[in-house]
Amino acid sequence: MVTDSRTRLVEAAQQLFAQQGVSATSPRDVLAASGVGQGSLYHHFPTKHDLALAAVAATAAETLEAARGRLQGDAAPLDRVVAYLERPRDALGGCRVGRLTADQAVVDDDGLRAEVAGYFTGLIDEVAAVLRETGLDADAALDRARACVAIIQGGYVLARATQDPELLRSAVRGFVALLTGPATA
Amino acid sequence: MVTDSRTRLVEAAQQLFAQQGVSATSPRDVLAASGVGQGSLYHHFPTKHDLALAAVAATAAETLEAARGRLQGDAAPLDRVVAYLERPRDALGGCRVGRLTADQAVVDDDGLRAEVAGYFTGLIDEVAAVLRETGLDADAALDRARACVAIIQGGYVLARATQDPELLRSAVRGFVALLTGPATA
Repeated sequence: MVTDSRTRLVEAAQQLFAQQGVSATSPRDVLAASGVGQGSLYHHFPTKHDLALAAVAATAAETLEAARGRLQGDAAPLDRVVAYLERPRDALGGCRVGRLTADQAVVDDDGLRAEVAGYFTGLIDEVAAVLRETGLDADAALDRARACVAIIQGGYVLARATQDPELLRSAVRGFVALLTGPATA
Repeated sequence: MVTDSRTRLVEAAQQLFAQQGVSATSPRDVLAASGVGQGSLYHHFPTKHDLALAAVAATAAETLEAARGRLQGDAAPLDRVVAYLERPRDALGGCRVGRLTADQAVVDDDGLRAEVAGYFTGLIDEVAAVLRETGLDADAALDRARACVAIIQGGYVLARATQDPELLRSAVRGFVALLTGPATA
């Protein structure tokens, strides 16, 4: 089935990118991991770039959707931000989108970088909108939203560097204590 | 001069690692960039691993020393932490140490990872010591110190993802506003 082989190729690429990065992943690796035929690969994705773009876009969309699930709802706005910050994460695996920014080939490719940038600006906008509900003005909400997203990305870096997931949790705990302190609630 | 060629090799490796990562850098690249002779390379660094270890250790030591310069001194403790957070940074270049954590080959190598981990735990300990001077208890100071270090690493990720240095500055501004708020000062 045509649709199915395309999905399998994209999913295999997403997984390999998360494990070893875009640069180190060849179309041949994706082909082997997906189990689809070579003709199907070139039918759906004539170039490695087409495949990379589809896989990075899919990862960005899935990750943004998961964040939206925490940020929307009926709970108090600050509670939703805290729920987003504190959700369980694969600390040692790292952020599937954030890690791509360390790959110079991704940063140098306008199409791939646009997907990664779109994920982060979309996420920051969502968090900023929730923070404005707490009464913050637009500029302060934007700075604080960027801090929220940065603390997660930085926590992943610390956890991976030390191979200790506690460092992500601890950084988030330190940040949430500031965020929910009496003066800022 | 023997000392000089060793230093030139290490400095060339540091620069190449910062630009393209450890995995993508060959001893041949370092040799070409350093301008020293091949015999000298193998005299000082019999294996690529020896050279990588020396270069990563040198980068970690230099970066930690620069941070200490901001964190020590006669200013009020919180002012020193803010000076560390707000120091000018090459946002688009990324942290020369932090970016190494995205390189799976670095994370999988116990020796290299120990250098990167040592940098972060050393830096966190410095920041935590300064935060304890503000009256925080040890656990809260450690969480907050990890948040301080994470906000910088995450700010780099956001700046690189969007190719906009303002995102690092904005995340730091959002964090500093929480850190220096009336309830937490």
